[in-house]
Amino acid sequence: MELSQIYAPVERDLYQVEEKLQSTAVVDFPHLATLLAHALKGDGKRIRPALTLLSGKFYNYDLKTLVPMATALEILHTATLVHDDAIDHSIVRRSRPTVNKLWGEEQAILLGDYLFAEAGCLTASTNNLRAVKLFASTLKTISSGELDQAFSAFTLKQSREQYFQRIARKTATLFTTSTESGAVLSGAPEESIQRLIDYAYNLGIGFQIVDDILDFMGTEEQLGKPVGSDLSQGTVTLPILLLLDRFPDSKPLKDLFKDRSDTNTTRKVIDMVRDSPSIIKECYEIATGYCERAQCSLQGLPRNEAWDSLAELGRYILRRRK
Amino acid sequence: MELSQIYAPVERDLYQVEEKLQSTAVVDFPHLATLLAHALKGDGKRIRPALTLLSGKFYNYDLKTLVPMATALEILHTATLVHDDAIDHSIVRRSRPTVNKLWGEEQAILLGDYLFAEAGCLTASTNNLRAVKLFASTLKTISSGELDQAFSAFTLKQSREQYFQRIARKTATLFTTSTESGAVLSGAPEESIQRLIDYAYNLGIGFQIVDDILDFMGTEEQLGKPVGSDLSQGTVTLPILLLLDRFPDSKPLKDLFKDRSDTNTTRKVIDMVRDSPSIIKECYEIATGYCERAQCSLQGLPRNEAWDSLAELGRYILRRRK
Repeated sequence: MELSQIYAPVERDLYQVEEKLQSTAVVDFPHLATLLAHALKGDGKRIRPALTLLSGKFYNYDLKTLVPMATALEILHTATLVHDDAIDHSIVRRSRPTVNKLWGEEQAILLGDYLFAEAGCLTASTNNLRAVKLFASTLKTISSGELDQAFSAFTLKQSREQYFQRIARKTATLFTTSTESGAVLSGAPEESIQRLIDYAYNLGIGFQIVDDILDFMGTEEQLGKPVGSDLSQGTVTLPILLLLDRFPDSKPLKDLFKDRSDTNTTRKVIDMVRDSPSIIKECYEIATGYCERAQCSLQGLPRNEAWDSLAELGRYILRRRK
Repeated sequence: MELSQIYAPVERDLYQVEEKLQSTAVVDFPHLATLLAHALKGDGKRIRPALTLLSGKFYNYDLKTLVPMATALEILHTATLVHDDAIDHSIVRRSRPTVNKLWGEEQAILLGDYLFAEAGCLTASTNNLRAVKLFASTLKTISSGELDQAFSAFTLKQSREQYFQRIARKTATLFTTSTESGAVLSGAPEESIQRLIDYAYNLGIGFQIVDDILDFMGTEEQLGKPVGSDLSQGTVTLPILLLLDRFPDSKPLKDLFKDRSDTNTTRKVIDMVRDSPSIIKECYEIATGYCERAQCSLQGLPRNEAWDSLAELGRYILRRRK
């Protein structure tokens, strides 16, 4: 099943989110309009707004608040990507040049700030204080996760626990905010809100592990950016942690990060991962465990079309190639 | 009268703001704690939180919401400075090395993001939706002002209107948000809220004009950063606009910005401003006009100690040297 089919119960409403995203780019100041149009172009997977809308389907589905909230979360996600690319000096994302590549890192910083603010305005327009508080604490969690990642970059000695903590902050938090806000805005009972939070937490961790696998195993065309980008930025992910357990005495692993400009060793380690099907299998097994836990969390929620979509999403993220 | 005397009616409460600022820096993650402590060190003028508290003094002065709001606005201000310094590659502010100088631009971007989020959390803790909406729209206005500044940097052909629009967005907006939020949180009637907004708008413009004068006329010790920083960053401010009107055929002005690495010409233009007392006088006259309008806006508000402080603040910013 393709993503568009999974999104079917909220397909029409996702168009409204898309329209709202594009209308965000309509501003008086022409240069800002150009930057916004580039950053918000409709080529993302839109998983976060879909999660918000699907989570709103179990109780009082109110588009007046769900659409701005879903849009806000996609914009928040975009803002973090714009800043990430500036930080990493990345030149390409989703097969298009990054904002920092086209207009410089300075403008990327300011565009990200503007997008954070725009997302905050949209969240506030729901008039729901819990959603507003959730939004603000989410940005705090994400940026502390990113700071941790920047701080621990180019450090090989990292525990698996650190890795999971980091991806929880960096990725799973925005997934849980997506479902929680959808549930809150539709008046879900606390128990159901908690189920949707658990679901999104596990889905988010599973999603990020697969992302980290694909960063090694995908093609540049599928990824829309160079293979092994994470390792080149000094970010240690699950495949590397498993490789370190398996081959503690390997020379390329021992040399890794000793000299940041030594792209040759980085290349060798990337190839080691690509040539170790058992490592990739183990990563997928761990991701599968999270996705299964996500499914379990759905138990107890009313069964409807949205329920089926959320369940299918857990299977989709395991088989996705980009 | 010194700032500390002007702040007298809210002095004890500003200590609470200071404590809240410092407690923000107490976090589990030691590296983040170091960054926060550096950025939030108590050497700013704290004008914005003082404006919030003083504006709260006319009606129901409720510290439970005013202190978090005042703290949020100082943190928002700090966040914009951290990003500004990263954008400008500035190495010193308030006589101390900048975050980007000490820990790199990447960490400065993420620290700024974290501070925006922290400020958002504090604002949301007031449980006041109008304050939350105001906060989000303020960040949007400031970052679009900064984008405009970055976009028009190193461009000599700028109208005075553009300059005033830019400083309104970049500086006056946060001043108006400071008084508006204080007024709103203390239950001020709409008419008084509007008076305090008008006051802060004019004060903010006056404050920024004086800032732009001091950037040329101050000493490095007073400024805590090199003299002529704005011009070196390609930012055209009021003294330069007046100089261009006065000496349209001057060679250094004609050569300015033709070659960004030509620090010699920049130096000559800085000296031209410093050697033109009439230009500086005219700038001060314009700033004085704004400060007088600020004073007028206070008419109609209840007369109390806070009223006197706000009036005195308008005189103070004209005579300040740093």
